[in-house]
Amino acid sequence: MSGKTGSGNFFEDFTLGQIIEHATPRTVTTGDVALYQALYGPRFALQSSDEFARALGLERSPVDDLIAFHIVFGKTVPDISLNAVANLGYADGRFAARVFPGDTLSARSEVIGLKENSNRKAGVVWVRTTGRNQHGETVVSYVRWVMVRKRDEAAPAPAASAPDLPATAAELQAPAGADFSAWDYQQAGAHHRWGNYQPGERIDHVDGITIEEAEHMMAARLWQNTARVHFDQHAAGKGRFGRRLIYGGHVISLARALSFNGLANACVILAINGGSHANPVFAGDTIYAWSEVLERIELPGRADAGALRLRTVAARNRPCADYPLRDSAGTYDPDVVLDLDYTALLPR
Amino acid sequence: MSGKTGSGNFFEDFTLGQIIEHATPRTVTTGDVALYQALYGPRFALQSSDEFARALGLERSPVDDLIAFHIVFGKTVPDISLNAVANLGYADGRFAARVFPGDTLSARSEVIGLKENSNRKAGVVWVRTTGRNQHGETVVSYVRWVMVRKRDEAAPAPAASAPDLPATAAELQAPAGADFSAWDYQQAGAHHRWGNYQPGERIDHVDGITIEEAEHMMAARLWQNTARVHFDQHAAGKGRFGRRLIYGGHVISLARALSFNGLANACVILAINGGSHANPVFAGDTIYAWSEVLERIELPGRADAGALRLRTVAARNRPCADYPLRDSAGTYDPDVVLDLDYTALLPR
Amino acid sequence: MSGKTGSGNFFEDFTLGQIIEHATPRTVTTGDVALYQALYGPRFALQSSDEFARALGLERSPVDDLIAFHIVFGKTVPDISLNAVANLGYADGRFAARVFPGDTLSARSEVIGLKENSNRKAGVVWVRTTGRNQHGETVVSYVRWVMVRKRDEAAPAPAASAPDLPATAAELQAPAGADFSAWDYQQAGAHHRWGNYQPGERIDHVDGITIEEAEHMMAARLWQNTARVHFDQHAAGKGRFGRRLIYGGHVISLARALSFNGLANACVILAINGGSHANPVFAGDTIYAWSEVLERIELPGRADAGALRLRTVAARNRPCADYPLRDSAGTYDPDVVLDLDYTALLPR
Repeated sequence: MSGKTGSGNFFEDFTLGQIIEHATPRTVTTGDVALYQALYGPRFALQSSDEFARALGLERSPVDDLIAFHIVFGKTVPDISLNAVANLGYADGRFAARVFPGDTLSARSEVIGLKENSNRKAGVVWVRTTGRNQHGETVVSYVRWVMVRKRDEAAPAPAASAPDLPATAAELQAPAGADFSAWDYQQAGAHHRWGNYQPGERIDHVDGITIEEAEHMMAARLWQNTARVHFDQHAAGKGRFGRRLIYGGHVISLARALSFNGLANACVILAINGGSHANPVFAGDTIYAWSEVLERIELPGRADAGALRLRTVAARNRPCADYPLRDSAGTYDPDVVLDLDYTALLPR
Repeated sequence: MSGKTGSGNFFEDFTLGQIIEHATPRTVTTGDVALYQALYGPRFALQSSDEFARALGLERSPVDDLIAFHIVFGKTVPDISLNAVANLGYADGRFAARVFPGDTLSARSEVIGLKENSNRKAGVVWVRTTGRNQHGETVVSYVRWVMVRKRDEAAPAPAASAPDLPATAAELQAPAGADFSAWDYQQAGAHHRWGNYQPGERIDHVDGITIEEAEHMMAARLWQNTARVHFDQHAAGKGRFGRRLIYGGHVISLARALSFNGLANACVILAINGGSHANPVFAGDTIYAWSEVLERIELPGRADAGALRLRTVAARNRPCADYPLRDSAGTYDPDVVLDLDYTALLPR
Repeated sequence: MSGKTGSGNFFEDFTLGQIIEHATPRTVTTGDVALYQALYGPRFALQSSDEFARALGLERSPVDDLIAFHIVFGKTVPDISLNAVANLGYADGRFAARVFPGDTLSARSEVIGLKENSNRKAGVVWVRTTGRNQHGETVVSYVRWVMVRKRDEAAPAPAASAPDLPATAAELQAPAGADFSAWDYQQAGAHHRWGNYQPGERIDHVDGITIEEAEHMMAARLWQNTARVHFDQHAAGKGRFGRRLIYGGHVISLARALSFNGLANACVILAINGGSHANPVFAGDTIYAWSEVLERIELPGRADAGALRLRTVAARNRPCADYPLRDSAGTYDPDVVLDLDYTALLPR
């Protein structure tokens, strides 16, 4: 391999406190918004209509919060997870400044935890990744941890250090300048507002969407995500699954779009508290989803909007009318592919 | 199913004269235009080049008329046809204000006819749907009728009432502010103008395009069309066809793009007089098309442009050199998938 | 076939010195840029970030040079290569004015060579094609030659005339107004600058991308490329390969995107000196690539940037760690699908 070809970092390349400035700043456009629409099918009015956004006091529609997440995540792949064995989890994900077409995003990560596996073949790396816009404002910040292979099993390991992570994101930041008391429930497609949801309530989102190879690869390339497992059937055909793996974030976006049917007014993602890609997803799988209301949260000083902490679960090739999740031993149902704990804003 | 999940209207939910304001206003962008280009491949110069449009006196290219149609149609699905057994027809479709990137579209329907089937299991619903831009101007208005299941066969039916529908659209509205005497036939790709087409003339559009699952699903999601039959292979695999059905409008757009080869200057759709999706279309089918000139129509007060009433027929897996349509008994050839009666503007 | 349906030119329709103004001017948008991103996955910072471009003195990001090439190429297909048997080669391709969103491209070709095959069934046509923007500035100009069928084998042939073609493009034109001394290597993703590359150096780009039918057809339609072999499985199923052929330019764009891993700062294509689509590519094939530095070139009067003449080779279903190319007899390895000789600019 040429010395000019990047092969990613291995476990022993990371050091606690290390700052990594990720490559390739990326300007977001209405082209990205149209592709997001075509790939996932969201119908949240705030992101769909500039006029709807203007009625709330914004200049135009912000882009879907997950566009920012996917772009920032994609930037980290060449440095953090090119040699990952597994993507283990997310925590303390906070969305801050909203992203509008024309904004340029870049990303930086700090290594906040390292722990070698007992077999010394790999180790867990925790990073806090922060995406910023061209003004230096944070648009999204989250912790994720991945298990990364070692280049050399004999390489010495740093002292184990795992970060303390909050069960829910430390901070909720509603979109600046938006007055949700002007929300048009008719246009948004449902009359259920914040106060209409009860903790413990479960919602089957009913619809299913089958994923095609062309779709998940176009998505991953759109996010400049370079993880090889998504793209190379020649190599994957000889591997563990015999198939290309679908980027976990693709499933998050599908589940979020499906969740419109039942959560039409949960219009802005404020936080990703945690998430697990419980089982792999392949082209040809049909994704269904259900959600549970975990908590109803007041937003300080806001009479126009509140937040719901939600669990959205996606399953493959299995409708979710009976809310599949785990068996009695606590193991994920083999059909469950996503268990996402997040917080969304709703008008009240 | 949660009370918050929409399950669409059933036949007995509709009442004559009912007005339905459909959800999810949608801003059209050049991102949509690029995706339309990628999905269908049109080459009509007016929609392809801002400079070409400016030479006619417009500010920029309008978007393809069918983008407006698909977006408006998509909005009606959750309310009108989520429980449809069949999409029976279109009539009196009129395109009015042209749509430009930045415009926001919304849709409203009025129920103008209801007729229960004799078996009482379903009924036909006629609606007039009107799409408007952010200024309240009509961009497209059309009648369609669908057969919708009843939730409860025992539910009482309204008195049967079917609307009178014109054979051709009641009104033709050329693009405001465009002077077609400045039309550049060289750039547009053909020298055939309005006067060169004769009623009765038939044109084989020659080329064929094979449809992939990823394409028609991306299209339907782009239009926020939520009809389940397009997306869910897990459910479709157990159904009547064993396959996902392709949105009829996808075939309309493919046939229209194919028709460029022979109708390169038929640049604006003024009306959809009627249409039938004669047979279902599935991924893997190759679409061919032919057209017949039904009528040559003067546009009042316009020396720069005229209209042609056209029939464009699409077939699957069957080239159209012999103009397939119906057998002697009047039944559609099983290869015919679309029979569209529409009116287009040409420079003269 | 109707007299209004284009069936392309046959060998005997071309005359030396003939000028062909191709149809369908096309405005480039950020929608095209997003689709290019989704279809190929490039990560070159200059085209990815408006802010990065501004730091060099440009108003915003130019679009990928290959977008201009593909659009201009696509325009020529209905006139030049609709009846082509084979696309034989490229030469003297020069990129001049950079293309920005909002620019409108059109294309013209001059027939500069004609040579009938000895079997009289077809002949080689050389054209110089020039794409221009709305200001009349050349954006790209290149020679290509194709073997085109004769409509009538008995038709008389013109005197054979083959143009002299330079081994490398006659002219290199760096982007106007860009100062590459402000290049941010950190953001661009690699610290290797012009002077770090040595003639003879070879780089394996490591990654592989599998191509899907939906992707290459969406690309070809985006470029308004009408070559039937890309789209019509019904016809292709009965043909020589039994499959749809993938547009050669699709492979160029994939190889270029893959080449980021090793050539991250080769940010602008200045010239295409030559190229050969060595073997056909089909959906399902996985593309890998490697590059060789052929020459290091000073750009007159520029201390901020230099040029590299590069060979980028793409192979299918075969990683390129051993740099596959030709066998000892000079025949292309059957896995090699592209051999492209081009010149790119790098900051120095």
